[in-house]
Amino acid sequence: MGEGELIFVGFGLGDSGLTVKGLETVKNADKVYVETYTNYTPDWVIEELEKLSGRRFERVSRKELEELGGAALLEAASDSKVVLLVPGDPFMATTHIALRIEAEKKGIKTRAVNSSSIVAAAAGACGLQIYKFGESATVVFPDSDTVSMKPYDTVLKNLERGLHTLLLLDYRAEENRAMTVNYALRLLRSLEKIRGMQVFIDDRLVVGLARLGYDNYKVKGGSLKDILNEDFGEPPHCIVIPGSLHFVEAEALKVLADVKEISPREEINARSYIPLDRLNRYISGVEKVFRDIRLLESSRLVDRGDIDKALDWARSYYEDSQAFRDRGDLVSSLVAVAYCEGILEGLRLLNLVEFKWEGEV
Amino acid sequence: MGEGELIFVGFGLGDSGLTVKGLETVKNADKVYVETYTNYTPDWVIEELEKLSGRRFERVSRKELEELGGAALLEAASDSKVVLLVPGDPFMATTHIALRIEAEKKGIKTRAVNSSSIVAAAAGACGLQIYKFGESATVVFPDSDTVSMKPYDTVLKNLERGLHTLLLLDYRAEENRAMTVNYALRLLRSLEKIRGMQVFIDDRLVVGLARLGYDNYKVKGGSLKDILNEDFGEPPHCIVIPGSLHFVEAEALKVLADVKEISPREEINARSYIPLDRLNRYISGVEKVFRDIRLLESSRLVDRGDIDKALDWARSYYEDSQAFRDRGDLVSSLVAVAYCEGILEGLRLLNLVEFKWEGEV
Repeated sequence: MGEGELIFVGFGLGDSGLTVKGLETVKNADKVYVETYTNYTPDWVIEELEKLSGRRFERVSRKELEELGGAALLEAASDSKVVLLVPGDPFMATTHIALRIEAEKKGIKTRAVNSSSIVAAAAGACGLQIYKFGESATVVFPDSDTVSMKPYDTVLKNLERGLHTLLLLDYRAEENRAMTVNYALRLLRSLEKIRGMQVFIDDRLVVGLARLGYDNYKVKGGSLKDILNEDFGEPPHCIVIPGSLHFVEAEALKVLADVKEISPREEINARSYIPLDRLNRYISGVEKVFRDIRLLESSRLVDRGDIDKALDWARSYYEDSQAFRDRGDLVSSLVAVAYCEGILEGLRLLNLVEFKWEGEV
Repeated sequence: MGEGELIFVGFGLGDSGLTVKGLETVKNADKVYVETYTNYTPDWVIEELEKLSGRRFERVSRKELEELGGAALLEAASDSKVVLLVPGDPFMATTHIALRIEAEKKGIKTRAVNSSSIVAAAAGACGLQIYKFGESATVVFPDSDTVSMKPYDTVLKNLERGLHTLLLLDYRAEENRAMTVNYALRLLRSLEKIRGMQVFIDDRLVVGLARLGYDNYKVKGGSLKDILNEDFGEPPHCIVIPGSLHFVEAEALKVLADVKEISPREEINARSYIPLDRLNRYISGVEKVFRDIRLLESSRLVDRGDIDKALDWARSYYEDSQAFRDRGDLVSSLVAVAYCEGILEGLRLLNLVEFKWEGEV
């Protein structure tokens, strides 16, 4: 066990997101490293932090942290107090988590000094409720032969459930490229041709956000076709796709994101999530049919054994449906109950049995 | 239009989460209010902030902000620079958003100074990837006659999709009650009797977190039955329910949350989300049947018109299924294709037609 310490200090969003505690921690460290490749950070921000703390920081690259596993940091932290300054809140990037685990395994104490994160700040800047955000995704620059469907599919799944989505935009420090809101929306709209689920259509309500945490931040929402052409200026940018809106949220989008009108057309019609009550209505509908069903005269033409077999088959699917539901497998339950309905309907279409579906006249 | 300004300054998590920018903003304000009812905050934290900034803060209650709409603040902000200090990052509570909208409508300039938020910090403290968190929920103290199923259902939906969930715990400043991890888990486990979807079972992997942002924070994960009896000390507490784990996340839970073992039993068996590929297999299976199906000798006993009607009916459900799928309504599509299968199966059980399902021998 060494006596060293590795402290991850978030310097938050913008130009003065370091906390009072973070500043003290930096001042008291033996050595201070900083990485700026996980979020776009202008050089002057780091210079300001150096001035504020009266310390010089050593820059670490993606290569140093990801390929070399932060060997230099871990070496230094084995017997001294080392700070790694990171943009936003620490541990938003897997690299930082992996580095922390590595340090702990080497007997180096670790801790975090939190700061602001885009995850909370983006929600707040739009006035959208943070708990209604579903999973988030990053829109990455397409390679020559692949484009990730992840952001499209994530937004789709969230919209289906009425949830908001935060889309982070790719930043490639080595190439000095940061994705803009405009680039991302154009890319996402092009995926509409592949998926066609009406997610990134011209009328979709979207919010572009730029430079949160800086004095010259910008938040502007509207229809996708309008925001496509909006100039958001310097990076970093991100996007929020609102889901169902509470009236305070709708009001907030107008006041805080300058959204002109919120049309009722924003609702997604995709539905891949089975509501339990709908399933239960199917199941109780079939239950009623089994109570009422009776054989018709014309059924004598067919082998009675075959009819009984078909009815038994239907009944066993009905029972399977209940069992699947009770085990939580609503998909198989829905398949089973609809299958059962189909068998019953088949018998009825052949004029072998008589019954009415719930609500049928 | 007044010349005033209302600035929402987050003081983050713990005892020194105020940022350097936030501190400057407080120092330069004409008047500083603070609210501590949206998150448990010991008095000494506020006293430290007063000492640090050399200012006295005026406490505002829930009643003042929610029932009276923050009238006093808005009045003061109409012609002076007013700061409202809030725990965490600003605008995590609807009250703050509503107050901001109200101010803007009165022509009062508003802005936010961000700070750390439990949403990002809880993920980081467990070493779980922030983008894999689904929607979050708050576990509230049950009233005498109601208990909210929301947290249970939220965790269920997230687990189904492999997502993590952050559960915030109720805090009632007026009654000086803050919910503990233990209370919340006991409550959630009791809901298992109502829902029975195997979410809050004894073996469920859960992580309890206490006092993030304070030096004496605690993070401890394990099976629900073990964490139920863990002492987390002073509030505030919260809970994370991990979903599917990347290997770095599994490793992080062991190192950072002291999880002894991660059994493969944590997977949820609930399934209410329809995978497109499964649906497509059903649809292409039926397509094959329509190509192969032929009438049997015994079908002569039944009116040929009835058989044709049943086959037409089945075919039209098959077409509906494709149309629903293409419109994104996978639920109706699945119902239609299973119904179609049922009709076909019914005809086969009656020995009227002959065909084989995909893979059937």
